[in-house]
Amino acid sequence: MTDALCGLPITELARRIAAGELSSTDLVGACLDRIGRLDGDLKSFVCLSSAALDAARAADAEIARSGPRGPLHGIPVGIKDNYTSADLPTRAGTAVEALTFPREDSHAVAKLRAAGAIILGKLRMHEFAWGMVTPPTRNPWDLNRVPGGSSGGSGAAVAARLCPAALGSDTGGSIRIPAALCGVVGLKPTYGRIGRSGIVPHSWSLDHAGPLTRTVADAALLLQTLAGPDQADPATASVPLSDYTAGLGDPVRGLRVAVIRNHFFDAVDEDVATAVEGAIRFFAEKGCTVRDVTVPSLRYGLGAIYAIELSSSTAYHDRSLAQGHVAGFAEDVRDLVEMGRFVTGPDYLRAEQARALIMAEMAAVLDRADVIVTPASPLTAWRTDESAVTIAGRPESVLAASWRLTYPFNLTGLPAIALPCGLDRRGLPISLQIAAKPFAEAMLLRVAHGYEQSHDWWRLVPPFADRS
Amino acid sequence: MTDALCGLPITELARRIAAGELSSTDLVGACLDRIGRLDGDLKSFVCLSSAALDAARAADAEIARSGPRGPLHGIPVGIKDNYTSADLPTRAGTAVEALTFPREDSHAVAKLRAAGAIILGKLRMHEFAWGMVTPPTRNPWDLNRVPGGSSGGSGAAVAARLCPAALGSDTGGSIRIPAALCGVVGLKPTYGRIGRSGIVPHSWSLDHAGPLTRTVADAALLLQTLAGPDQADPATASVPLSDYTAGLGDPVRGLRVAVIRNHFFDAVDEDVATAVEGAIRFFAEKGCTVRDVTVPSLRYGLGAIYAIELSSSTAYHDRSLAQGHVAGFAEDVRDLVEMGRFVTGPDYLRAEQARALIMAEMAAVLDRADVIVTPASPLTAWRTDESAVTIAGRPESVLAASWRLTYPFNLTGLPAIALPCGLDRRGLPISLQIAAKPFAEAMLLRVAHGYEQSHDWWRLVPPFADRS
Repeated sequence: MTDALCGLPITELARRIAAGELSSTDLVGACLDRIGRLDGDLKSFVCLSSAALDAARAADAEIARSGPRGPLHGIPVGIKDNYTSADLPTRAGTAVEALTFPREDSHAVAKLRAAGAIILGKLRMHEFAWGMVTPPTRNPWDLNRVPGGSSGGSGAAVAARLCPAALGSDTGGSIRIPAALCGVVGLKPTYGRIGRSGIVPHSWSLDHAGPLTRTVADAALLLQTLAGPDQADPATASVPLSDYTAGLGDPVRGLRVAVIRNHFFDAVDEDVATAVEGAIRFFAEKGCTVRDVTVPSLRYGLGAIYAIELSSSTAYHDRSLAQGHVAGFAEDVRDLVEMGRFVTGPDYLRAEQARALIMAEMAAVLDRADVIVTPASPLTAWRTDESAVTIAGRPESVLAASWRLTYPFNLTGLPAIALPCGLDRRGLPISLQIAAKPFAEAMLLRVAHGYEQSHDWWRLVPPFADRS
Repeated sequence: MTDALCGLPITELARRIAAGELSSTDLVGACLDRIGRLDGDLKSFVCLSSAALDAARAADAEIARSGPRGPLHGIPVGIKDNYTSADLPTRAGTAVEALTFPREDSHAVAKLRAAGAIILGKLRMHEFAWGMVTPPTRNPWDLNRVPGGSSGGSGAAVAARLCPAALGSDTGGSIRIPAALCGVVGLKPTYGRIGRSGIVPHSWSLDHAGPLTRTVADAALLLQTLAGPDQADPATASVPLSDYTAGLGDPVRGLRVAVIRNHFFDAVDEDVATAVEGAIRFFAEKGCTVRDVTVPSLRYGLGAIYAIELSSSTAYHDRSLAQGHVAGFAEDVRDLVEMGRFVTGPDYLRAEQARALIMAEMAAVLDRADVIVTPASPLTAWRTDESAVTIAGRPESVLAASWRLTYPFNLTGLPAIALPCGLDRRGLPISLQIAAKPFAEAMLLRVAHGYEQSHDWWRLVPPFADRS
């Protein structure tokens, strides 16, 4: 019973809470119970909030008195460990004790609390968001495999039904990659749509905040709560918010779907390609106009994002470099932070020029299309002992492979969502990526919801999560 | 007679042309005659247009037929050698023959031609706009002294009455410094106000186009013609144009003048300080509210602009570095271009952060003020054999000293104007700098005009220009 509760999407949980059929206390208790039973093996949470049950009881009292504030009232949410919060320590995935972070609610956490959500705990991440593995967290579809990263704890916890939603952050794919590898929904909204103050920075011009959920409708609910201006994040946009749930059920008929055939299909696992082509056929069959396009300047994308991300990360870690704290970083992260010193200012500026080219070409594609459809990841979850993989006969490091299809939407700042679209021959989830025009999250979610509701992928439960 | 003609401001020349009292042919002829007599010593022009007299005759015919297009119709203008044009070669001050530039009108030159202005020739500049000396051009106030740079030819030619106006470009002060050292008016408008396509780039985020003239009203006329969107310069703003001449005569009474006391007065020549304090008293006496302020983060300004300018310049010269063309650059410029390779990406990003701080503090000052008043240069024109100077007892390289007071307005993109405000004990011009809010050029010009018209500094003719 309690485990079945944990499998429900927020839309249903909120309905039950509003109807008086479910208490937040029971729901939070069920999640904590489940975490206690399963997370010893999964290792998705870094810490749990001792205040969560009290907060749930307070929510129940308020709801009994005056009804729910909104659909998140009483809903437990897990927080990636780079969001600061008043009641839980923040470590941003690092073991270096000398590095401390403010004990105050980040903008997003404050918004969640204001909406009545219950902060359940902090979720594990790849150190400083600089990696796609998130040790020691495991993938609930196969405990020998990685959950992806850097929001690996968020992906694993939502997939394993430990919490119905989690916050992640996405600099090169760090929301969408774990969503893809764990078979959940990951939404990276438009750059500037969700305020980032209080999130430990990785790369200012690439960092995005966003939710991981089990359904597209739940992602819409989270976005509705989180989006909007943030006085302390100068990148947040003053573009008015849309109603992200109202149009979710509108049919996709007549919409224009662009498929970027270069870069996104260059080296993709066979099962992934088959599943994604199936999704593309779905849109054509539903009456969308599907058009193949190319974005030639994507060939400069990897160099551009590497130069920008390395420079930004190393600028942020400047003091840690000077004070020797990087010696305590994991070796892969230390290497990246130290490499940033070898990117030159002229390299950085050429990277920004390449980015401007890619943005212009993507904008031209979206002048003639409502959404872009691609695979979210060229591969499914890899084994924890693999540092390189072979995709379509080509050997590649897992870091290089994992973010190849996500980083273009960090460079361009376009909103993008990853959602399940199949299982590979090993039973691992495959993910579809949909992107849209700046601030067209309502369109993005409508198309994603249209696909999701015609398929059962989102209902599949990872074997580990079915364990009692 | 012809020499007297060359001493008139554009406002008066335009009046005479419109009244049929003066032909463009006579005016252009007088300028060419004067250039022929004086520029062998001054060396301000790189080349003259063989089409100028024909263009003047065509202008006269059109004016006789249908009246002038506007105040610039028939007026000769000199062009800094980094603006491309269809009828004259562009060298951007370099001797490297292998480097070639398009033979087509830059945005600004096309706008001047459309307004009926006569392109007189190309004016000498410090190679690739990377210096404040502009060899071999001399200062008409003293031929043993430099005209400043990088638009040194523009400053010298306008001061020597070889042409009534010239185009310059300003990345760290390259319009305002030669204007200051040559005793003319130099206007750097807001970043994005004048399109830069067709100007050989130096540092994208710092480069500004603008005019050098003898009066503030003439600068307003040039700005009115040059400002506005440029399809090929993504930095140009869509902010509507103001009428830059209509309010020039409005009194300054009641305006709020901020004097930034740190940085801008830290090490300033005694005569310069005295003249500028006199100008500040003038505004107080005219009924302005004068308030001393500080902008503490200016202490990061030099590091910031160096990191940004070096990175950008080296990114632009990347191919010249790879192909060995930099070996043909002047030694000072070659050093700077090669130094740019040692700025790191993290340095660049920290520089942009410092810039954001300075912009925020300047914006706070301008929340409570209409204009900022400072000296334009801490020193007057230095001797051509000086590479270091002593100001207020402090030894300093001429490069370091010359741009100290101008670069803050390149970092911030705020509009700034330099105009004469006195002569030092050697008879060399001293310059006042006024800055304003973004796109508040009308206010800037009104305040500058109010000062100028109450003084006779702009009427003073350099000794060399008085030579017959």
